[in-house]
Amino acid sequence: MSGWFVCVCTPSTDPTNIYIYITYPVYTRMKTLLSFMHCFSNFLYSITTVRSNSDCLLLLALSRGWYKCGKWEYLREEDIFTAGMNGNGPSKLVDPLEDLVPGVGTYEDFNTIDWVREKSKDRDRHREITNKSRQSTVALLHSLCDAFSGWLLMLLVGLMSGALAGGIDIAAHWLSDLKGGVCLTDFWFNHEHCCWMSNETFQERDRCPEWQSWAELITGKSEGAFAYIMNYMMYIFWALLFSLLAVTLVRAFAPYACGSGIPEIKTILSGFIIRGYLGKWTLIIKTITLVLAVSSGLSLGKEGPLVHVACCCANILCHLFTKYRKNEAKRREVLSAAAAVGVSVAFGAPIGGVLFSLEEVSYYFPLKTLWRSFFAALVAAFTLRSINPFGNSRLVLFYVEFHAPWHLVELAPFVLLGIFGGLWGALFIRANIAWCRRRKSTRLGHYPVIEVLVVTAMTALLAFPNSYTRMSGAELISELFNDCSLLDSSQLCGYKQVTDRPAGENLYTALWQLALALIFKMLITVITFGMKVPSGLFIPSMLAYYHHDWVIFKGWCSQGADCITPGLYAMVGAAACLGGVTRMTVSLVVIMFELTGGLEYIVPLMAATMTSKWVADAFGREGIYEAHIRLNGYPFLEPKEEFEHSSLAVDVMRPRRSDPALAVLTQDGMTVGEVETLVESTHYSGFPVVVSQESQRLVGFVFRRDLLISIDNARKRQEGIVSTSQVFFSEHAPSQPPDAPPPLRLRGIMDLSPFTVTDHTPMDITVDIFRKLGLRQCLVTHNGRLLGIITKKDILKHMAQIANRDPDSILFN
Amino acid sequence: MSGWFVCVCTPSTDPTNIYIYITYPVYTRMKTLLSFMHCFSNFLYSITTVRSNSDCLLLLALSRGWYKCGKWEYLREEDIFTAGMNGNGPSKLVDPLEDLVPGVGTYEDFNTIDWVREKSKDRDRHREITNKSRQSTVALLHSLCDAFSGWLLMLLVGLMSGALAGGIDIAAHWLSDLKGGVCLTDFWFNHEHCCWMSNETFQERDRCPEWQSWAELITGKSEGAFAYIMNYMMYIFWALLFSLLAVTLVRAFAPYACGSGIPEIKTILSGFIIRGYLGKWTLIIKTITLVLAVSSGLSLGKEGPLVHVACCCANILCHLFTKYRKNEAKRREVLSAAAAVGVSVAFGAPIGGVLFSLEEVSYYFPLKTLWRSFFAALVAAFTLRSINPFGNSRLVLFYVEFHAPWHLVELAPFVLLGIFGGLWGALFIRANIAWCRRRKSTRLGHYPVIEVLVVTAMTALLAFPNSYTRMSGAELISELFNDCSLLDSSQLCGYKQVTDRPAGENLYTALWQLALALIFKMLITVITFGMKVPSGLFIPSMLAYYHHDWVIFKGWCSQGADCITPGLYAMVGAAACLGGVTRMTVSLVVIMFELTGGLEYIVPLMAATMTSKWVADAFGREGIYEAHIRLNGYPFLEPKEEFEHSSLAVDVMRPRRSDPALAVLTQDGMTVGEVETLVESTHYSGFPVVVSQESQRLVGFVFRRDLLISIDNARKRQEGIVSTSQVFFSEHAPSQPPDAPPPLRLRGIMDLSPFTVTDHTPMDITVDIFRKLGLRQCLVTHNGRLLGIITKKDILKHMAQIANRDPDSILFN
Repeated sequence: MSGWFVCVCTPSTDPTNIYIYITYPVYTRMKTLLSFMHCFSNFLYSITTVRSNSDCLLLLALSRGWYKCGKWEYLREEDIFTAGMNGNGPSKLVDPLEDLVPGVGTYEDFNTIDWVREKSKDRDRHREITNKSRQSTVALLHSLCDAFSGWLLMLLVGLMSGALAGGIDIAAHWLSDLKGGVCLTDFWFNHEHCCWMSNETFQERDRCPEWQSWAELITGKSEGAFAYIMNYMMYIFWALLFSLLAVTLVRAFAPYACGSGIPEIKTILSGFIIRGYLGKWTLIIKTITLVLAVSSGLSLGKEGPLVHVACCCANILCHLFTKYRKNEAKRREVLSAAAAVGVSVAFGAPIGGVLFSLEEVSYYFPLKTLWRSFFAALVAAFTLRSINPFGNSRLVLFYVEFHAPWHLVELAPFVLLGIFGGLWGALFIRANIAWCRRRKSTRLGHYPVIEVLVVTAMTALLAFPNSYTRMSGAELISELFNDCSLLDSSQLCGYKQVTDRPAGENLYTALWQLALALIFKMLITVITFGMKVPSGLFIPSMLAYYHHDWVIFKGWCSQGADCITPGLYAMVGAAACLGGVTRMTVSLVVIMFELTGGLEYIVPLMAATMTSKWVADAFGREGIYEAHIRLNGYPFLEPKEEFEHSSLAVDVMRPRRSDPALAVLTQDGMTVGEVETLVESTHYSGFPVVVSQESQRLVGFVFRRDLLISIDNARKRQEGIVSTSQVFFSEHAPSQPPDAPPPLRLRGIMDLSPFTVTDHTPMDITVDIFRKLGLRQCLVTHNGRLLGIITKKDILKHMAQIANRDPDSILFN
Repeated sequence: MSGWFVCVCTPSTDPTNIYIYITYPVYTRMKTLLSFMHCFSNFLYSITTVRSNSDCLLLLALSRGWYKCGKWEYLREEDIFTAGMNGNGPSKLVDPLEDLVPGVGTYEDFNTIDWVREKSKDRDRHREITNKSRQSTVALLHSLCDAFSGWLLMLLVGLMSGALAGGIDIAAHWLSDLKGGVCLTDFWFNHEHCCWMSNETFQERDRCPEWQSWAELITGKSEGAFAYIMNYMMYIFWALLFSLLAVTLVRAFAPYACGSGIPEIKTILSGFIIRGYLGKWTLIIKTITLVLAVSSGLSLGKEGPLVHVACCCANILCHLFTKYRKNEAKRREVLSAAAAVGVSVAFGAPIGGVLFSLEEVSYYFPLKTLWRSFFAALVAAFTLRSINPFGNSRLVLFYVEFHAPWHLVELAPFVLLGIFGGLWGALFIRANIAWCRRRKSTRLGHYPVIEVLVVTAMTALLAFPNSYTRMSGAELISELFNDCSLLDSSQLCGYKQVTDRPAGENLYTALWQLALALIFKMLITVITFGMKVPSGLFIPSMLAYYHHDWVIFKGWCSQGADCITPGLYAMVGAAACLGGVTRMTVSLVVIMFELTGGLEYIVPLMAATMTSKWVADAFGREGIYEAHIRLNGYPFLEPKEEFEHSSLAVDVMRPRRSDPALAVLTQDGMTVGEVETLVESTHYSGFPVVVSQESQRLVGFVFRRDLLISIDNARKRQEGIVSTSQVFFSEHAPSQPPDAPPPLRLRGIMDLSPFTVTDHTPMDITVDIFRKLGLRQCLVTHNGRLLGIITKKDILKHMAQIANRDPDSILFN
C-alpha cells in the first residue's frame, strides 16, 4: 500500500492521543473510502470543524481531545489503518482502570458507589467491544453475545426465581399442613394433594382417611377433648420447631437473611454497597428459612422475602457475565428487574411487579430496564404457572368469579375504606417502628432466638382455637374471596336461604371468629415484622383488611335483597390497607387487579388507594420501608420527596467556616511521603487535586482507596519509588534535579471530570443533581476556585438537622 | 417585649442577607421557645455548626449564605420575630425575578427552557407560600389551595377531556353515518340510534324504515344499479365535503391543528417552546376538524389527536392557577398527565395511558406526576363512561368475550406475528418518512388542500365498493373481534355448520374482501399520515393487522375441529403491528388488554410486541414519532438511546479551535454601551460572566433576553442610566470617579449557579447530564478557567454528524 503526507497531531497534553490530518486533495480522492470506513467504525471525520486550516483536514479523530498540531509527516497507509482498526490506540485510553492495578475503581463495604463513573466505565467497555468486533468473527460473536447477555441474564433470572418461588410455595404448603397432620400413603403430600390422590370415597371435603391428624395417629381418636389438646400441642410444637430452625439457621449462616429485605434492597439499588447481602449463602438460607417461617404460622408473608430471593438470584447470575460482574451500575439495573420478578412470582402479577419496581424500589430505572423487567417478570410468572403450585393453572392467585358492576353510590364506602386503610397504615408504621427501635436500643435485641420463640408460641397458642387464624394466609384469602355459590360449604356462606340470604346461625359465629382473628392479626403483625426471620408484610396486611371488611359488610349483605358483593369490599379494603402501609398507588392497583382478575374494579381500587395514601401521608410522609431505612441509618436519598429548605451549597459543604481548610493534593510538587501522611491523617474517602495551593484551581478528584492501592503497588513493583519520589497528576513530569528518584505518575487514577457546583447553588438544585445523577460527592467552587466538598452523607445530615432529627443517625457514607 | 444582645451578621457579600446570633446564656434560657418556633417556621438554628465561636450561637439563619459576622448589637425581640415571620427578609431574595422587570425569566418562541431554573423558581414560590401561611388564616387557606391545586387541575383536565372525547365520539359516529343516509324522524340520530328509537318492526338488523339511504331519499329506490351509483356519489360527496371543511379550517384558523400532534408534544414535554401549539384556537379547530377528518372516511385514527386535544385542555386550564401558568416546568408535568388522559379516553385504558405517557411521551416523569396522571386518566375514563358514547357502559371499547386459554405451542405463531409486525412497522416508517420528506422538499407541499381532496377522493372511491372499508374503523374492529356465536349474522361467521365449522361460500367472499381491504389500508395509510388534517395512527395500524390475521388464521380455523380463536390472533397481530410502528412495549400490552379485557393473554401479547420491537429496531432504531421529530428538526434529545461515541466535551463545545474567543461579560468594568454592542454583535442566547478577561474565572451566566429587557427597562425607568454607565454583576458597586453616571447593578438577573463540566468530561456523561437535568446549556472549564460552552443544539449537531447526517437539519435551539 502507498501512503500520504499527513499531519500527525500529537497533543502536547497527552502523548498517547493521536490526530491525523490529511491535505484536501487527498481527501477529495478518498471520499468514497472514507464514507465506507465510516460505515463500520466510529471514526469522526468532519470538514466543518477545521475551518481555518483549509489545507489540513481532520481525517480521523482516533481519540478524544482537541489540541495543537505537530508538523507534516509521511505516514504509511497501513499505519493509519492498524492504528484505527485494532482499537488499541483509543481503547487503551478508554478504560485506563483495566490496565492498572487490580482493585482500583472498586468500592469498600458500606460505601456509596459513583453512578456516573460506573456508567461511563460500562460505555467505554461497550465501545471497546464494538470496535473490536470489526476485526474478527470471534470478536463479532463476542460482541453479539455481549449485546444479548442482558436478555439472556433476564431469562435466567426469571427461570431461576420462578422455579425457586414454585418450590417455596410447594414446600411451605406441605410444611404448613404438617402442623395439623400427616399423609399416611406418602408423607411428602400435603393435605389437599393427599386427599386428591386418595382411592377411597369420603364424605366431607378434605376428610379423607389417608390424611390423619396427629391425635388420630398417636392416640387413635379423632374427636374429643383429649384429641383436641393433643392436636393443639402438636400444632404449637411444630410451630416452635420451625421457627427455632429458622432463627438458628439465620443466626448461624446468614444474618442478612432476616426481615423483609426490601428496605435494604432499596438502599442497595440507590447505590450503596452491602457485601454478602445478595450472596449465595443469603439465598440458600433465606429460601429455607422463608419456608420454615411461613409454615410456622407466624403472621408474615412471603412477598418481601421473595423479592430478596429474586435479587439474590440476579446477583449470583450476574457473575456469569463480565458486563454485570464488574459494573455496579449495570448490576443494579438487573437488580431492579429482579425486584419486579420477585413481586411477579409472589402474586403472579408481572405488570404489577414492574410497576412496583418502578414506583417503590428502584432508583435508576431507564426504559431499557423497563423492557427487561417486563420480560423477566413474564418469564418468571410463566415458569411459576408451569410449575403450577396452586393447582389452578392460572397466572392469578386469587381469581375472583364475580363480575357484577358496581354502583356510583358505592364510591362513598370505598373512600371510607381508604380512610380506614390510611389510618391503620399510619398507626401500624408508628407502632412497628417504636417496637423495632425498642428492640435496637434495649436488651430485647440481644435475645433474638428467645424473641422469635416467644412470639411463635403466642401466635400458635392464640391462632389454633380460631379456625380462621389456624389456616394459612393464602387459604384464608381464598375463603374470604368467596362469593357464596349454592354448593359452597364454607361457614361464611351459612345463609338460611339462598334467595334473599338471611344470615344463619353459622354465619354469625363465623363473623365473630373473623372479628377476633382481625384484632389478633393486627396486633401480632406489629411485633412480628422486623424479627430475625424472613418476614414479608403484604399478605398479613391484606388479611387484616379482608377480615375487617367481611365483618362490616357481611352484615349489610344479609339484610337487604340487593346484596352487595362482600368479596369486592374485601379486595378494595386490602388495597386501601396496603396503600396506607407502603404508600404505593398505581402499582398496588395493578397488583390487585392482576391478583384477582377484576379489571372492572379499577375505579374503586383507585379511589381507595389514593384516599388511603392521602390520609396516611397526613400523619407522616414515610412508608414502612422508608421508615425502616431511616431506622437503620442507611444513606438513602429519597427520590419522592422534594427538598424544600432554602439553604445554599455553601451551608452544607465541608469544611465549615471554623474547620481547618480542605485537604487537597496539588497536581505536582508533592512527594509520595507527603501524600501518604495527608491520607493517613484524614478519614476522607477522596481528595480534590488542584493546580497549586495558592490558586485552588481544580484539576480533578482522586479516591482514597485508589490512591492507597496505587502507591502501595508502585512501591512494590515500580523501581525507585521511595518516600521522596515526586507524585504528579499533570500530563508531564515536573522538572527535577538529575539525582532525584523517578517521579510517580498518577493521572490515570484521577477523575478528570469531577462534578462541581458553585457556592451559591441552592441546595434543592444540588440535591436534585445528586439524586438524578447518583453522585457520591460534589465539589463546591466560588468564582472558579475550589471552596469545599459536599457528600451524600452531608446532605442527609443536613436534611436530618432540618427535620429536627439527630444528624448522627446517618451512619454510612 | 424585651430584647436581647445579639450579634447581627450582615454578610459583606450581600447586604440584604441577615444572620442573627445570640450568646450561649441566652440560648439556654430560650431553648423551649426556640424549638417551639422551629415547629412552625423553617428557621435553621443549630449549635453544631458554629464550633469555634462558642459564645456566639447561630440563632436564625434568616436567609441563605454563610459569611463573616458584624458587631454585637441590641435587638428588640419584635424585630427578630417580624423579620422572620413576615417572610419579607428571605422571600424577597427567594424569588428575585418576581420583583424585577416583567419578562425577565421568560422564554422566546422556539427556544428550549431551562428545567433547573424553572423547578428552582417553583420551589422558591412554594417556600414563600409556606412561610406566609403561618401569618394569617387567609394565607393558610391560600397555601392549602395551592397544595391541592394540582389535584384540582387534574380533575378539571380529566372532566374536560372526557367530555370532549365523548362529544367527538358521538359527533364522528353521526357524521360517518351521514355519508350513507339520514334519519327521517330526527336527523341528528345516527344509524344505530335511529333504528333503536324506531317504533316499527323490521326484519334485518339496522334496516329500519326511519333510516333512509340517500338513494332512497332522492330517487325513492333502495335497490338497483342506479341507487348504488347514487349512494356511491353521495358517499364521495360527503367525504370530500368533510375533508375540504377540515383542511380549510386548519389552514385558516389553526395551522398547528394538523397531524397527530404526538411528535410535537414529545418535543414540548422535553422543554421546547412552541407558542400557540396548545392554545385555545388549536383546541377548537382540532376538535372540529378531528370529527370531520374521521367522518370523511380517511384512513386515520383519533388517538394522537385526542392526546393533543387533552394537552390543549390542560394547557388552557393551567391558566387558572398561578402555580402552573407562570412555570414552564410545572406546566409540563400537567401536560405529561394530559397525554395519559388522551390515551385513556381514546381507548378507555387509564393504566395504559399512564404507561404510554411514561414510556413514549414524557421526558420528566416524577412519581408525583405518576400519581396525578393516574388520577386524571381515571377521571377522564369515568367521565367518558358516564357519557357512554358507545352504548355498552363499559370502560373498554372492544370487550372480547372469549376467554379460552391459549396453548404453549401457539407461541410460535405469536412470535411470527411479531416478526411480521416488526417488518411492517419498519417499512411503514421508511415509506411514510420518504413521502413526508418529498412533501416538504417538492412542490407537493404547496397544495395541501388539493392533496387532502385527492387522497380523500381516492379513499372514498376505493373504499365504498368493499363493505369492510366502507364502515368506520371502530365498527370494523368490533366486527373482526367477533367470535361467531350462534346468532351472529356477520358474513365472517358464514360457516356452513356451527359444530365443526366448515367454511361457507360467504366466508370465502368475506375473506377476499378482507384481504383487499388490508392491502388498501396499508397503502393509503402511508400517504395519509402527515397530511394537513388531524390524523392518528393507532386505529389504522390496528386495522391493517386485524385484517391480516383474519385472512391468515380464519383459513386455519375452518379446517380443523379444534378451532383456534381468530379474534385472539387479530389482537396479538394488532399489538405486534403497533409495536413495530411506535416501538412501545409495556404500555402497548397494557393498552391492548385494557381495550379488550383479555388479562389472560399477557404472554402472547408480550411475546409479539417484544419480537416486533426487536425486528423493527434491526432496521432502524427510531419509532414513527421520533422519525417525525427528526424530520422537523426539533431539538429533542432522545432519552432512550445511549450516546456511544467517545468524544469529549472539548470536542463539542464552542468556540472551536479556529473560532474567535467566547463572548463573555466581565463582572465589572463594562459599560452599558459595551454590553449592548457585544449582545448585538452576536446571536448567542446567553453570556457567561467572568471575574476578568485575563483570569477567565466563572462567576455566573446571563440570558440574552433577560439582559436586553433589564437594560431597556433601566434606561427607561432608572435615572441616570446612559451608555457610559458602568454595568456590574458583583455584590458591590465598583469604585468610580465622582462625576461618573450611576452604575447599573444586574446581579439579580445573573444565574449564580451555572452548570459546568471540565473539558475532559466524556460526552456520554455530558449528554446524560443534559438529559437528566434538562439543561439548555453547560459551560466548559479547564483547571478552573472558562473555556467554552455547550448547548443542546451543539450536542444534537454533534450527534447528527456522528450518524453521518446533515448537522444543519437541527433547526432550533
